Amino acid sequence: MKDVLDYIEKNKQAFVDELVALLRFPSVSADSAYNEGIAACAEHVRAKLVSIGLSAEVVETAGHPIVYGEWSNPANSRTLLIYGHYDVQPVDPLELWDHPPFEPHIDGETIYARGAADDKGQFLIHLLAVEAFLKTGGNLPVNVKVVIEGEEETAADNLEGFIKQNRERLKADGVVVSDTAMFDHGVPAITYGLRGIAAAEISLSGPGRDLHSGSFGGGIANPATEMARIAAALHDEDYHIAIDGFYDDVEPVADWERDAFGVLKFDEGDYLKKTGAIALQGEAGYTTFERVWARPTCEVNGIYGGYAGGGGKTIVPAKAGCKVTMRLVPNQDPEDILRKFESFVLKTASPAVTVEVVSQGGAKPAIVSRDSFLMAAGTAALERGFGREPVYMREGGSIPIVNVFKEELGLDTLLLGFAQHDDNIHSPNEKFSLADFHRGIVTVAHFFDEVGRPG
Amino acid sequence: MKDVLDYIEKNKQAFVDELVALLRFPSVSADSAYNEGIAACAEHVRAKLVSIGLSAEVVETAGHPIVYGEWSNPANSRTLLIYGHYDVQPVDPLELWDHPPFEPHIDGETIYARGAADDKGQFLIHLLAVEAFLKTGGNLPVNVKVVIEGEEETAADNLEGFIKQNRERLKADGVVVSDTAMFDHGVPAITYGLRGIAAAEISLSGPGRDLHSGSFGGGIANPATEMARIAAALHDEDYHIAIDGFYDDVEPVADWERDAFGVLKFDEGDYLKKTGAIALQGEAGYTTFERVWARPTCEVNGIYGGYAGGGGKTIVPAKAGCKVTMRLVPNQDPEDILRKFESFVLKTASPAVTVEVVSQGGAKPAIVSRDSFLMAAGTAALERGFGREPVYMREGGSIPIVNVFKEELGLDTLLLGFAQHDDNIHSPNEKFSLADFHRGIVTVAHFFDEVGRPG
Repeated sequence: MKDVLDYIEKNKQAFVDELVALLRFPSVSADSAYNEGIAACAEHVRAKLVSIGLSAEVVETAGHPIVYGEWSNPANSRTLLIYGHYDVQPVDPLELWDHPPFEPHIDGETIYARGAADDKGQFLIHLLAVEAFLKTGGNLPVNVKVVIEGEEETAADNLEGFIKQNRERLKADGVVVSDTAMFDHGVPAITYGLRGIAAAEISLSGPGRDLHSGSFGGGIANPATEMARIAAALHDEDYHIAIDGFYDDVEPVADWERDAFGVLKFDEGDYLKKTGAIALQGEAGYTTFERVWARPTCEVNGIYGGYAGGGGKTIVPAKAGCKVTMRLVPNQDPEDILRKFESFVLKTASPAVTVEVVSQGGAKPAIVSRDSFLMAAGTAALERGFGREPVYMREGGSIPIVNVFKEELGLDTLLLGFAQHDDNIHSPNEKFSLADFHRGIVTVAHFFDEVGRPG
Repeated sequence: MKDVLDYIEKNKQAFVDELVALLRFPSVSADSAYNEGIAACAEHVRAKLVSIGLSAEVVETAGHPIVYGEWSNPANSRTLLIYGHYDVQPVDPLELWDHPPFEPHIDGETIYARGAADDKGQFLIHLLAVEAFLKTGGNLPVNVKVVIEGEEETAADNLEGFIKQNRERLKADGVVVSDTAMFDHGVPAITYGLRGIAAAEISLSGPGRDLHSGSFGGGIANPATEMARIAAALHDEDYHIAIDGFYDDVEPVADWERDAFGVLKFDEGDYLKKTGAIALQGEAGYTTFERVWARPTCEVNGIYGGYAGGGGKTIVPAKAGCKVTMRLVPNQDPEDILRKFESFVLKTASPAVTVEVVSQGGAKPAIVSRDSFLMAAGTAALERGFGREPVYMREGGSIPIVNVFKEELGLDTLLLGFAQHDDNIHSPNEKFSLADFHRGIVTVAHFFDEVGRPG
């Protein structure tokens, strides 16, 4: 490892130059005016993979191309799938940028450019760590398969098609992704779990048309009221979810996790400021971190019924409805939860309205076991890269590609994020810390080393 | 009375001819293309009033004119205000009419034309009853003030302005209006009560903007859920309204009313067919007639919050709201009810959301006491005109002009409707029974006679 670490130290400036070069490509995926920038960036990444010793190709898709590369040594016991994306968010509103978004600007230890943190600066960390191994000993302790896509910032699913068509080729032992943030400045994090999701829509019908609420109000059921009664019944007084059997398969928050989340600094004032809420609220008996990372939820994303325009309209509405997504935790299964949701809604609804529940599918929660080599290696690597133990986090959302890796390839994904929450991703003046860029390369080199050790 | 009744009998055909003449005016108030028809109709009504012996004028307003007429004899003890409207609904879709809407078509005992039932055929009944008195004995047992407006089918409130500016001139002992329906074919009705109304809108704010339901769901309050919890709390399990003190001033349904409503034929299948509902539902312990006529309600006219478009959107919405109207019965006061509503909502809302309740005013319930001369006279008159006792009804809606008469002039209004529920008012092929037209004239003549008797 010494040669590897020396190489990283010696090439500190060269690596920054490489980042600058990568950031110059205007690879905005959502706007076809940038198709040239996308194509050039894909080719640049392919060339980089080849230059450091991988076999690599640009895979054309129905949308933007995927860059795929791999390197293996039969002596290695493990294979890592490294995922990233070379496309970036649009730059509007351009006038709010202090410097042109595709002319990287360095101020002290910070680099400003579109894509700096999301995700060019982060996936490049992995390529440079690979380079450090291959350019020193000519070997890498793990086999690597690199997938850098160009449609992460769009709704396209060409990557999913690529994965489905290349299940054999993409065989690996685990996935590592750097596309998230650290817990805080100077505080590295292991993000080892994502919540799953299950979505459904409830539709209620009452009268055949909107009726005059004077002439008919009181005589027949009001679907808006009935919708409210169902939506209200989803939680009890303590904000536990009241759907029968909803918690049957929920893995309780483990003691070690409670401890791990408990040591994380939670600044209530800052959280309220960030969300704009006037108070915290959630399931009784759990902290905010536990509530959003490790406990399931049932959120009304939208409720509607009757008249919502200006002024008033004296009607008993004909219809009402509500869109719900439930965030799931291990070992809840979206299909099972959707069945329980439907049963609960049908049971709860007034017999005087017609109720329909349409399940819209979902995704399983994803978690890396504490015993997994990914988590052990990540922990050890971050300690070496940042000089302090990482904190253990989960993420409340679902990252679709992580579910695809799990569903299609059977692989767990570890999220080793090196960005900060205030890096302005998706906003003007996106930035990335060059110190963390450097520490990230050191960390990932150690990660490869750890993963490569006989388990 | 014999001369009066003979006159009515003798002029049966002449009165039908008068109705046909009145129906020929295309007095659509909502479309300025018909302004000429409106003006000509107003002048026709004024001329009719003069021809039967009233002093009358066409009163110009900011919109369509009001026809005002009066006749008095100092010997009379009571004055009746007679209200009607000469404007009619639009005729679209014209292709669905079997005969041109302004070329009255008579088929047996039925006349087809726009305005036949709503309201030309009905207000003309009153003018012809006045005529029968004045053309026989030259006297009328009551003083009459006649207001026939031209904007009932629009949202204009020029009539309200006219009433406010003419409080002295319009002084009377009661109002009679024929602009509603009988209970059924052959079953005359006294409609002696209208529900009041109180309107409010609830607005909830949670996070400062729609938040990602994965990252934040579970940690903060969801305004759509909280809105549902408030809307659901408005009623208890038995659909009694749960607002504290809501029923404090409610006059219980009197035994005689329960009996009166109880004898009315209620066809559940027909009611469900008419409303399109799959079942009846309402406050426990009351019949449908009691629920919609004599009990207050709290209806959600609209509920909204978050995403209501196609597909889904995984958000914790920033805002939600709900529009509510409460129908009131004697002796509930809209201002008092709105205060109680607001207190209840504020008490019920989660402290983790910001809640605002905006009261949008209301109107008091209107009821004619059983002891009122209007009700006694109406009952006696209908018995004579239709050969059977009338049934006693209330109406669940609020008729704004009735509230104006009450608020501005302190007058109760009796609704003596001669139309049928299937007369296609506001629809193609509007019709009116010529038999009921005739019986109506006889009834109103008796009504004048009854009202004129020393009380």
